[in-house]
Amino acid sequence: MEGLRIIPLGGLEQIGMNITVLEYDDSIIVIDCGLAFPEDDMFGIDMVIPDVTYLEENIDKVKGFVITHGHEDHIGALPYVLQKVNVPVYGTRLTMGIIEHKLSEHGLLDTTTRVVVQFGQTVNLGKFRVEFIKTNHSIVDAAALAIYSPVGVVVHTGDFKVDYTPVYGDAIDLQRFAQLGKNGVLALMCDSTNAERPGYTQSERTVGVTIDRLFAEHKDTRIIISTFASNVDRVQQIINSSYKYGRKVVVEGRSMVNIIKTASELGCLNVPERTLIDIDELKNYPENKTTIITTGSQGESMAALTRMAEDTHRKIKIGPGDTIIFSSHPIPGNEKSVTNVINKLLIKGADVVFQDVHVSGHPCQEELKLIYSLVQPRYAIPVHGEYRHLIAQSKIARDLGISKDNIFIMRSGDVLTLDQKKAEITGSVITGTLLVDGLGVGDVGNAVLHDRQHLAEDGIVIVAFTMEGDAIVAGPEITSRGFVYIKEADELMQEAVEVAKDALFRYLDKGVSDRNRLKASVKDALGDFFWKTYKRRPMVLALILEL
Amino acid sequence: MEGLRIIPLGGLEQIGMNITVLEYDDSIIVIDCGLAFPEDDMFGIDMVIPDVTYLEENIDKVKGFVITHGHEDHIGALPYVLQKVNVPVYGTRLTMGIIEHKLSEHGLLDTTTRVVVQFGQTVNLGKFRVEFIKTNHSIVDAAALAIYSPVGVVVHTGDFKVDYTPVYGDAIDLQRFAQLGKNGVLALMCDSTNAERPGYTQSERTVGVTIDRLFAEHKDTRIIISTFASNVDRVQQIINSSYKYGRKVVVEGRSMVNIIKTASELGCLNVPERTLIDIDELKNYPENKTTIITTGSQGESMAALTRMAEDTHRKIKIGPGDTIIFSSHPIPGNEKSVTNVINKLLIKGADVVFQDVHVSGHPCQEELKLIYSLVQPRYAIPVHGEYRHLIAQSKIARDLGISKDNIFIMRSGDVLTLDQKKAEITGSVITGTLLVDGLGVGDVGNAVLHDRQHLAEDGIVIVAFTMEGDAIVAGPEITSRGFVYIKEADELMQEAVEVAKDALFRYLDKGVSDRNRLKASVKDALGDFFWKTYKRRPMVLALILEL
Repeated sequence: MEGLRIIPLGGLEQIGMNITVLEYDDSIIVIDCGLAFPEDDMFGIDMVIPDVTYLEENIDKVKGFVITHGHEDHIGALPYVLQKVNVPVYGTRLTMGIIEHKLSEHGLLDTTTRVVVQFGQTVNLGKFRVEFIKTNHSIVDAAALAIYSPVGVVVHTGDFKVDYTPVYGDAIDLQRFAQLGKNGVLALMCDSTNAERPGYTQSERTVGVTIDRLFAEHKDTRIIISTFASNVDRVQQIINSSYKYGRKVVVEGRSMVNIIKTASELGCLNVPERTLIDIDELKNYPENKTTIITTGSQGESMAALTRMAEDTHRKIKIGPGDTIIFSSHPIPGNEKSVTNVINKLLIKGADVVFQDVHVSGHPCQEELKLIYSLVQPRYAIPVHGEYRHLIAQSKIARDLGISKDNIFIMRSGDVLTLDQKKAEITGSVITGTLLVDGLGVGDVGNAVLHDRQHLAEDGIVIVAFTMEGDAIVAGPEITSRGFVYIKEADELMQEAVEVAKDALFRYLDKGVSDRNRLKASVKDALGDFFWKTYKRRPMVLALILEL
Repeated sequence: MEGLRIIPLGGLEQIGMNITVLEYDDSIIVIDCGLAFPEDDMFGIDMVIPDVTYLEENIDKVKGFVITHGHEDHIGALPYVLQKVNVPVYGTRLTMGIIEHKLSEHGLLDTTTRVVVQFGQTVNLGKFRVEFIKTNHSIVDAAALAIYSPVGVVVHTGDFKVDYTPVYGDAIDLQRFAQLGKNGVLALMCDSTNAERPGYTQSERTVGVTIDRLFAEHKDTRIIISTFASNVDRVQQIINSSYKYGRKVVVEGRSMVNIIKTASELGCLNVPERTLIDIDELKNYPENKTTIITTGSQGESMAALTRMAEDTHRKIKIGPGDTIIFSSHPIPGNEKSVTNVINKLLIKGADVVFQDVHVSGHPCQEELKLIYSLVQPRYAIPVHGEYRHLIAQSKIARDLGISKDNIFIMRSGDVLTLDQKKAEITGSVITGTLLVDGLGVGDVGNAVLHDRQHLAEDGIVIVAFTMEGDAIVAGPEITSRGFVYIKEADELMQEAVEVAKDALFRYLDKGVSDRNRLKASVKDALGDFFWKTYKRRPMVLALILEL
């Protein structure tokens, strides 16, 4: 069927890898270009980025990336993808500031066309026009997009919340959502993250009140406060309270330093003069006249707060005179890391505050109902969240009168074709993920990961021998790593050598000298031996050298 | 100083490995003997058990194990520890039933003296007398212990909650706690798990009401309900609702089957006749007349519900006609596994209920205040919990008038010596953990774990060559596992061989043929090469065979 095509290239299978294609006729635009963080069993992987084969194959159609906001799960893959799909990038001021910092790190600043867009402004991209609409989120300058296509308007909320009293800038432009709805919206693609939660997400300002109370209660100690680097509004409120209570502020952690620099330059952050000091100046002030804003609110192993907790931070030592505030909630999967850091800080005698100093940046159920009621789309396409969250939003959409047939929970690669009359999944395109490990992009695949999992679980035993024709002239030598304790291994390996020899000579005596069969015989024999002795299955690797 | 000695051999550093020594003069008793589950970075480890060197060195003093209840973190190490410290084991009826099942699996039933103790009964153990007191917990037959020593009474709560309306048996014997307190208690060792939570933990019976409501609401579908195997009361309530709504019940998952068998035999579980059916009989009943009680509420990879979600369960297929209830909360660290299972079940079209069908088995702050107010101990020793929880309980103890100097947060191996006049940490004993991997106990230590972590992160590159005196006569051959994708590897490995050769010949040309120096030269050269090429640090293993 003809019509507008909506194709998520990531998102559901790899949460966070937000990248969505909108295609009409000869025009493609791409909403966001995010990375995903590796799953726990993706050993050694730094990040996961989308396979953009579909964009490469249709490069002539691609008009640009339109970016909703500056979080990693929406912009993180740009430096990789732009190398293959070099088209202009459109975004609001802080979003572009963060993107530019990232591109310059990758040496891509000069080769990338960047366009900063104002809220309310519309850009023309082939058959599409895209309007950027003010929203609120846990990062400044977040935008929703109204995408005008020949068959109707698609509203994509990006990540958002409804904050009537934001810290910086205006509240979400609900009037515009209402206008668009009144004029008729074809489809709404709406943030599902908090769709399981009843009620409203509280205003960011409420956290400021809590922070101010904590500063009042802890006048006698140094305050170390940890939050997400990109939450500029949170940082602003911490700075406000610090200034109010006559504290100097140190910023710790590379990402925190970067974002504060970018946000200050763009005027999104207002720091009173002589409030920020260098970490080396801390000693010039009484401890209770200092605040340290730091990364590490998720217990990340290399972050500044984690290093403080583990006594490996070069400049800051934690002790009984410290109040440490987690202005964050653990992201699912990080609970244990966070609790480990909290325990370590407590053991050092610090006072640790970790409850109720945070609000979410995503809409709860009542906010979703509000947006649906303003926009009144024909079709609902819940986005941004795990399957359970998309399901939760689709239940809300149904409660608000959208029929089941008009709600689409899309998987990566699904092609939804729609117009005013109908919408259906009409096919699929190639999608996938590329694993980034060090400088390698895509050279670690499932086979390598599977090997890493095997090695992690049971270690490796290597048996090597040298052959000359049909004769073994050196070895077999056996060695292991990650298998058993070395003292134990010595004796065991002597036995293992005998097992290997037995297997080899059994074959050689029969006249078999095929290298692959010999290798297999040793692997099988040793595998059996270790399983019987230890109930373990180390990877067994047989190596034959030829004289 | 003379007096009673209290020595935790585990607990704080390894949450769950509950084992505490009480020593007076020539007598030692041991409270509980639990295992810990491995941390995320303990690759390949099945469980963690305590080092009981201290007990072995004092074997003549050890009078027995007194066990508070039948959870793994309180009994799981018994089969290992009893092999070294073969003394009688004391516990209540279901606790002993579970222990006996465990011992028989390890062939230790005949060699272990077991004594079943009634609530209110006291056993003599050398200089100690130990009274078992009824409490409530998420397992039937949980006991607190009053330990009478020559210098006073220690009350150990075990894990408990205050449930005025338990499903099976009596409520916690608060009168006895009060009597003990009135007569004077030296020290209280009290469960800290929920000490951060205000209010009261709700009665187990409230979950029954919720389950009954869910059964009423889902009369038209099969119900699959997942909970902790050992929560016999929960299982009882699920059976009650099933019976009420005319459903047959299938029990799935090995641990669930075992515990139900044991509990039924001991009369702790009351199953109406012809309610339980075999899984193969499911086909004889309409789906909406069946309930499946299953393991897997924590998203454990091999549990029955996980296998159903992943379509690898041989007998049960999930579909739109199923209602799946998680009667549990994720234990910290399991959030992601649980959410993965929920997503997979939803994708299959099942209705999944996962909120508010559970209550905790541990006391919240008001319950802690109650116990402290009844017992009024001289000394407080918070137990069972992470450091943050022990700190939270100590704050409560201080609020209730116990001075800071009389509250002890003990680390494994600390020796607290106390009598009516004073209490102080007087030393420490050897403690530690043994890692169990397959049949091996303690043969995987830090070095092996470190290797496994390294292998997991970056894989391994093996370079092997054969030497005859000062000459290389075969190789170097290079192979890798878990490093890079094989096609990429081919070309890379050819380069790597050259790098290895260069390094080797540089040394050999200088007349260096010391095997260790040759190995080191190859390892360094290849390490540099891979770091430069890939920014990765695979383990590099050099292997020399001698002709």
